[in-house]
Amino acid sequence: MSTNAACIFCKIVKGEIPSLKLFESSSVFAFLDIQPLSRGHALVIPKHHAPTLTTLPDEHLSEILPVVKKLAIASGAENFNVLQNNGRIAHQQVDHVHFHMIPKPNEKEGLGVGWPAGATDMEKLKELHQEMQAKL
Amino acid sequence: MSTNAACIFCKIVKGEIPSLKLFESSSVFAFLDIQPLSRGHALVIPKHHAPTLTTLPDEHLSEILPVVKKLAIASGAENFNVLQNNGRIAHQQVDHVHFHMIPKPNEKEGLGVGWPAGATDMEKLKELHQEMQAKL
Repeated sequence: MSTNAACIFCKIVKGEIPSLKLFESSSVFAFLDIQPLSRGHALVIPKHHAPTLTTLPDEHLSEILPVVKKLAIASGAENFNVLQNNGRIAHQQVDHVHFHMIPKPNEKEGLGVGWPAGATDMEKLKELHQEMQAKL
Repeated sequence: MSTNAACIFCKIVKGEIPSLKLFESSSVFAFLDIQPLSRGHALVIPKHHAPTLTTLPDEHLSEILPVVKKLAIASGAENFNVLQNNGRIAHQQVDHVHFHMIPKPNEKEGLGVGWPAGATDMEKLKELHQEMQAKL
């Protein structure tokens, strides 16, 4: 299990910083966000320290979504968003992988989703498809 | 494996609607979004039909994030968001669980994230914490 002494989420996992813990297992830790976007906003993190999803080994991923689901059910939210950000420009603030479960009770509270979809360009998409397939 | 004859994602899984497929296993299917928010925007879905995360059995969740991670790596994105929406008000458009992997190359393209955080109210949070713990 990798850990980073300077990481605030690693400190929360170790209990060095208090948290409103909701769930803990050998691989996963979950707690309430104390600057919530809505009532029930919670975070699920792998205990293993990795800054982004692409640097987190697969074995630390398998339990995350079942726990996100448990929290969504416990929050009672009918509508909610699950969000995981990678990189400052993508709104990541803490460099330890974390999944937000954010209830969406109304238009004002919860995650604001901006969706700047472009026009469909099938030729470009087919080129990209081949390029990505070659890397998979 | 539950399937829904009227669901467009179930039709994509069955090949009744063509897609730019990137990955397929016994439980998961992944393809390019044809109305992308940015270059590389892809979707990962469980083959099992369930409208929302809370109605999807856990056994269909375990492979999703490793596939999202594979796609993020193949896209070459340095910054990206992973998003899963539940309910119309939370921006869900197709009623079959799907995870977006959306590269964030710059401020204009990719997911727009609105973050209307409220003030921290520790008393309310502690009450909520007890309430959710009782349901977990």
